[in-house]
Amino acid sequence: MTTYTAINLIARPKGGPIGPELFEVVQKDMPSVGEGQFLIKQTHMSLDPAMFGWMSPDTESYIAPVELGTVMRSSGIGEVVESNHPDFQVGDRVTGLLGWQEYILTNGKGLNKVKAPLPDEAILSIFALPGLTATQGLFTIGKPKAGETIVVSGAAGSVGSIVGQLAKAEGLTVVGVVGNDEKADWIVNELGFDGAINYKTDDLEDKLAELTPEGIDIYFENTGGPIQHHVFARMNTHGRIAVCGMIADYPKAEPDLAPNWIPMIKKRLTVQGYAMPDHFGEIPQLLEKLTPYVMQGKIKYRSHILEGLESAITGLNLFFTGGNKGKLIVKL
Amino acid sequence: MTTYTAINLIARPKGGPIGPELFEVVQKDMPSVGEGQFLIKQTHMSLDPAMFGWMSPDTESYIAPVELGTVMRSSGIGEVVESNHPDFQVGDRVTGLLGWQEYILTNGKGLNKVKAPLPDEAILSIFALPGLTATQGLFTIGKPKAGETIVVSGAAGSVGSIVGQLAKAEGLTVVGVVGNDEKADWIVNELGFDGAINYKTDDLEDKLAELTPEGIDIYFENTGGPIQHHVFARMNTHGRIAVCGMIADYPKAEPDLAPNWIPMIKKRLTVQGYAMPDHFGEIPQLLEKLTPYVMQGKIKYRSHILEGLESAITGLNLFFTGGNKGKLIVKL
Repeated sequence: MTTYTAINLIARPKGGPIGPELFEVVQKDMPSVGEGQFLIKQTHMSLDPAMFGWMSPDTESYIAPVELGTVMRSSGIGEVVESNHPDFQVGDRVTGLLGWQEYILTNGKGLNKVKAPLPDEAILSIFALPGLTATQGLFTIGKPKAGETIVVSGAAGSVGSIVGQLAKAEGLTVVGVVGNDEKADWIVNELGFDGAINYKTDDLEDKLAELTPEGIDIYFENTGGPIQHHVFARMNTHGRIAVCGMIADYPKAEPDLAPNWIPMIKKRLTVQGYAMPDHFGEIPQLLEKLTPYVMQGKIKYRSHILEGLESAITGLNLFFTGGNKGKLIVKL
Repeated sequence: MTTYTAINLIARPKGGPIGPELFEVVQKDMPSVGEGQFLIKQTHMSLDPAMFGWMSPDTESYIAPVELGTVMRSSGIGEVVESNHPDFQVGDRVTGLLGWQEYILTNGKGLNKVKAPLPDEAILSIFALPGLTATQGLFTIGKPKAGETIVVSGAAGSVGSIVGQLAKAEGLTVVGVVGNDEKADWIVNELGFDGAINYKTDDLEDKLAELTPEGIDIYFENTGGPIQHHVFARMNTHGRIAVCGMIADYPKAEPDLAPNWIPMIKKRLTVQGYAMPDHFGEIPQLLEKLTPYVMQGKIKYRSHILEGLESAITGLNLFFTGGNKGKLIVKL
C-alpha cells in the first residue's frame, strides 16, 4: 500500500444536516517513519457530539476549531504497525485524537497506550471521552446523594447512558429522556433506569410529574429542547444542573431560549457548563471512580457501528435525528 | 397611646404595580409586656425586592410566604421602649424582621442588638440584608480576582452599589447598569465605578463592548431584562454569574426567557442563584469581610427615605420604576 485515505474539513457547517460539501476525501502518500516516531493503523474512530463544536468557527470554544483544509478531528483507537519509538512497539494499541484518516504518523504526544483487555468498542464507549465526561459531570457538578432523583436527557446516548448507570449505582432514582420507545425500553430494561420519557410522544409535563414525584435534584443536560423547561420547573431546592450538551440546538441558526432565572434564586439552583479538556489532569481520579463500577458489570454499553471511513460524514447526522443506537463508532 | 398602626397583607400580587388593594391598615391595641418580653418602637423599616417573593404564594421559595391576614414582613430597626427581658434594656437598638407595624412585642428571638454607633439608615443600608447579600454573592459565587471585569445590574440599588464598591476595592474593573443618568453619574463619580450603562437610553451591545474590552468574568444579576442577554454573550471562559434578583421580571405574568445554554458549555460558565437565609450561619465571616472596607470609608451608601408607615405600600413600586435613589427606607 503506497497511499491511504483521509478526510479534510473544507467548510464550516451553517446549521442543518451535515453533508459531503463540508469535506474532501483525499489520498495521501504513506509516510516513512523517522527516529522517535511510529505509525498507527486506526481500527475504530469515535463520533461524538463535541465534533460539531470542533467544526464551528467559534474561537471562544474550549478547543481550537479544526482548520479548514486539514484532517477532521476525532478520537479513535488503532494499532502500532511500524515503530522507531522506544516506548511504542508494533502491536501496541493506542487511543487519542487520531482524526479521520486510516494511518497516523506520530511521536506519541497526547496518545495513550491501551492496556485493558477489552474490545475496541468498549474502550471507545466507556473509557474514552464518553465515560470520562459522564463521570466528571455527574460527580463534580451533580454531587449525587443516595435517595435523590436525577433526570438525564439524551439518556441512551454514549454519555447519558453512563451517567444514568453511575447514578443508579450510587443509589439515586434515575429517569432518562430519549427519542423513541426502543431506547426507552433499553435504558429501563437493560440499563436499569427507573423510568423513561419519550420526548417525541409523551406528554412531558405529566410524565415527568409521574416519574419524579419528589421533584428533581440533579439534571444532566445533553440535549436542550422543550424538556429542559419542564425539568427546570421541577427542580428541587439546591438542585444542580450539569450542562454537557445541547444537541437539539446545535443545528439551529437561532437557538431556543432557556428558562427564566427567577427559580434560580427561589430554589438556589446551580447551572454549570463543562467540557472535558479542562479536566484532563483529573483523569486518574475519574478512572478510579469509574473503573470499579465497570469491573462490577454495572456499566453496560452498546455501540452503533458504521462501516468505512467515509460513513463518518453523514453518520454525524444521526446525532440530530437520534437514529443511532448507542455509541457511534466508525469501523475502518 | 392605646393603639398603634399595622399593615396586613390581604391578597397576593398578580403582576403589575403593587396597590392598596393588597393590604389593610389596622389599628391594634397596645399590648402589655409579659415576663421575658420587651416592646420595640420601630423607627425605620427597610423595603427590599425580596419582599415580592414573600408576598407571593409560591411555597417553593426560600422563606414561607406571608400568610394572608397577617402583618407584612420586612426588616427594620427600632428602640426598646419597655422591657421585662434580662438581655434587652430600654433604649437598646435592635434589628430584625419587625414587619409593617409601629410597635412589636417580642421575646427577642431572631433579633439582634445594634452596637455600632451608626445612624439607623447606615445600619439598614449596609450591615443589614443588602450588605450581607452583596458580600455573600460577590465573594462566594463571584470569586473575584484583581484585574478581572465585573458587570453589576441594578448597580445603584442597595445590593448592587455595595457589590460594585467591594469589587472595586478588590481591584476589579467594575461596570454598573442603571436606569437613568443621575444614577450613572452617582455610581461613577461618587462610588468609583469604572463605567455605567443606562439600559434605557444606551445601545446596550455597543456600550457594553466599549466598557468591557476584555470581556466579562463576573456578572452580578439584580434585574434580568435585555441586559442579561448582552452580558451573557460577552462572558469570558470560566465566568461566574451570581443571580441575586430579577426585579424586571417579578411583575410580569410571563417572565422573559433566558439565554440559550450553549455558551455555558463552550465557556464553562457557572450560573448560581442564592438567597441570604441559606447563609445566616456565615454572617460572622461575611461581616469580617465587609466591615474593614466600611471602616476604611470604601463603602458609601445613600438612602431614599419615605415618610410614614403607609408610604411603604406604593413605595414598593419604586423598585419597578427605578424611581428610588438608594436604599429604600420608611421612616416611622
